[in-house]
Amino acid sequence: MPGTVRHGESVEVAIIGGGIVGIVLAVGLLRQNVKVRVFEQAQGFREIGAGIAFTANAIRCMEQIDPAIVTALRLSGSVATSNGDEKEPNDYLRWIDGYNQHREDDPYYQRMLYKIDAGYRGFEGCRRDQFLEALVKVVPPEVIECRKRVQRIEERSLEEKITLTFVDGTRAQTDAVIGCDGIKSRVREIILGEGNPASYPHYTHKVAYRTLIPMEDAIKALGDYKAKNQHNHVGPNAHLIHYPVANKNMINATAFVSDPNEWPEEKQMVAPGSREDIESAFAGWSPCVRNVVSLFPEKLDKWAVFDLWDYPAPFYNRGKICLAGDAAHASSPHHGAGACVGIEDALCLSTLLRQVNTSVQENGISKGKALRAAFETFNAVRRTRSQWLVNSSRRACDFYHQPEWADPAKWVKAETCFEELKDRSYKIWHFDYNGMIKETIKGYAEREADLV
Amino acid sequence: MPGTVRHGESVEVAIIGGGIVGIVLAVGLLRQNVKVRVFEQAQGFREIGAGIAFTANAIRCMEQIDPAIVTALRLSGSVATSNGDEKEPNDYLRWIDGYNQHREDDPYYQRMLYKIDAGYRGFEGCRRDQFLEALVKVVPPEVIECRKRVQRIEERSLEEKITLTFVDGTRAQTDAVIGCDGIKSRVREIILGEGNPASYPHYTHKVAYRTLIPMEDAIKALGDYKAKNQHNHVGPNAHLIHYPVANKNMINATAFVSDPNEWPEEKQMVAPGSREDIESAFAGWSPCVRNVVSLFPEKLDKWAVFDLWDYPAPFYNRGKICLAGDAAHASSPHHGAGACVGIEDALCLSTLLRQVNTSVQENGISKGKALRAAFETFNAVRRTRSQWLVNSSRRACDFYHQPEWADPAKWVKAETCFEELKDRSYKIWHFDYNGMIKETIKGYAEREADLV
Repeated sequence: MPGTVRHGESVEVAIIGGGIVGIVLAVGLLRQNVKVRVFEQAQGFREIGAGIAFTANAIRCMEQIDPAIVTALRLSGSVATSNGDEKEPNDYLRWIDGYNQHREDDPYYQRMLYKIDAGYRGFEGCRRDQFLEALVKVVPPEVIECRKRVQRIEERSLEEKITLTFVDGTRAQTDAVIGCDGIKSRVREIILGEGNPASYPHYTHKVAYRTLIPMEDAIKALGDYKAKNQHNHVGPNAHLIHYPVANKNMINATAFVSDPNEWPEEKQMVAPGSREDIESAFAGWSPCVRNVVSLFPEKLDKWAVFDLWDYPAPFYNRGKICLAGDAAHASSPHHGAGACVGIEDALCLSTLLRQVNTSVQENGISKGKALRAAFETFNAVRRTRSQWLVNSSRRACDFYHQPEWADPAKWVKAETCFEELKDRSYKIWHFDYNGMIKETIKGYAEREADLV
Repeated sequence: MPGTVRHGESVEVAIIGGGIVGIVLAVGLLRQNVKVRVFEQAQGFREIGAGIAFTANAIRCMEQIDPAIVTALRLSGSVATSNGDEKEPNDYLRWIDGYNQHREDDPYYQRMLYKIDAGYRGFEGCRRDQFLEALVKVVPPEVIECRKRVQRIEERSLEEKITLTFVDGTRAQTDAVIGCDGIKSRVREIILGEGNPASYPHYTHKVAYRTLIPMEDAIKALGDYKAKNQHNHVGPNAHLIHYPVANKNMINATAFVSDPNEWPEEKQMVAPGSREDIESAFAGWSPCVRNVVSLFPEKLDKWAVFDLWDYPAPFYNRGKICLAGDAAHASSPHHGAGACVGIEDALCLSTLLRQVNTSVQENGISKGKALRAAFETFNAVRRTRSQWLVNSSRRACDFYHQPEWADPAKWVKAETCFEELKDRSYKIWHFDYNGMIKETIKGYAEREADLV
């Protein structure tokens, strides 16, 4: 009978969305002998966004999921940010006074406020499109179907197959669905409900402007040391962050500006902008910052930063449908760790689906019950940390944009933020993923025991 | 020649303020063979404030400073909050929904939001006045001078004695001064400057009302379990916290209410209040909370909560004059850890003054240079953590008072605060004081090396 579930065989999972988290998860599930299909709405794999960085911890998570992922990352031309400089072998995050304390005798002077040691090869950066291209090659081509935009998901009962209906009118059946379909997730909208504010991302009241600057020009603007090393220039209502890319031939510079207004169009997060916008936001800042701003193109895109902070999802699964990565917890980019937390999700789910296969193939538990127990475990294990990240990234940006940076009587208070930024960074970088794996296995085993 | 410093003998330290941190520090310094005098402005030792609790970690710090301090604490009638209940042997902090989700069928129902395990005997509570009385007996009577309110502190040069002038016109000379003179510290005003906003505490825009309620009445108001265990009822713009005291014959209840207005009188932090004030703040809350509020006396004191958050001290020492405890970092009470961090200060200073005696008596370093190096080390080791606590306590109260608690669409967001509250509590409770001691010895040794 079509649509009924036969026991004893591997479960089959549909992953909605072929972004980095979706493909990493597919690799992980395949390694656990889970049947996987990935449905991607686009015609092919063209990721937006120039660069992406992974923490050393996230790379260790990839290694746990499947060492082939790390190989793909390295083959895609990823580079350790650590430069092997004898004096500073490690990666650091650096915050520098972008606004105050100009010195007429030394216009390049900016006070270093704080730096945090991320360890040797603490970060590894790559181009998103190149990494995704290398990742896709790790999975058999028949696993991925493009031009499949999901429209409806029907889960009639626990022991029946789920039916996916795509915008093109075609259908597919599967045991379980994992939505890795990013910040504008359709799967989220389906399980939380149309019209529910938690189903949609909201404006963080920050806009971002990005550009690449040749190193030669960056050195003229900032001085040699600052141009060649990551720096985050903080000040009232804005910050400018830059780091070297492309084998140190360029710097990637991003200016974030606070915006008290509403974003006019919820569907479209990019609007035309101009250098003048940034110039006025950084007027009166250090000459170094203004030099960098003058190197942005006259006309450029203005990116609205959206996230899921205002209305966090009350749950990450409904029955055998689950959310992971940005679909579950899209964050603003201020910790640079959104994708890393998605990789942790993929590790958790790979662990769980291995357990599900054992339950189904060896312990005689039904697919439906096993899958629901797995996704409930995922929700219990992952929701707190991943929503914490969304909060924390907002908090970090609030610190960078403190109005107090403009008031000398408030500098001491403003600088007290760094202890907290250090703690928050460590919580991200030093995540105990082995502890998470243990908690996952234990949580699933407890739920499984109730099923037997 | 009077006023000159002889080398080779112990340094002498004047502690300004005979509160808990001042006396604990005196005990610690005496144990390190440091000469100590304590100058207390009051006629005797009468601490305000009914109760005080110490974390297990702070008690371990006391043990390091001098086991006699722990003996004094226990002799003063301190009780472990842990009650040895088989089901719940450990101490917990509990947050409970004070505002929402009334149930007509069960008026005592309140949803438990979160609890954090503080371990067995995680907190130990006592009456402040009784602990102080027991502590004072640990130091020889000639060490403490009452009715000595400091007016001026003159530090003419590094190698000359410091002269203290008291309000009664008398004077004293000493090698070093440590201000343990609390939130309204005169020593702070002297080293940061009169008129400097960092010299004074500022209003946190919260007021507190306290009372003791017989257990029998508390059980009628709250139900048995809630009356007998610590609970923190959170809701929009206010919270109510209570825990059993006096051998479980009473509960100590404190209501905190947000106040958007300025406090009228900076010098006087207490004003007459009435039960009506609290009734209006908690109108519409859970019947349990309103029941407790109805047991507050009709006329009672209203305490303004002040702290040093708005203008944190840019440094804790100037030469041989130093601040510790509330004088350095007076915090609002929302982590219940203000005194604990002051005990950590005392451990750091006891460690340092032992090193100073060694420098002076064995390494031929001048008292002035050694003391300045010690206090600079104290500033470097302690300022970040203790000012973090001041920030964090404010943040905790902001979470308790989130307006979001009143908006069902925002409950999920409001509840994301608990992960952060857990991290903040752990940072306080699990402080690595052995690491601090090592850092202190290393920091001092590096400064000493520059002096030789």
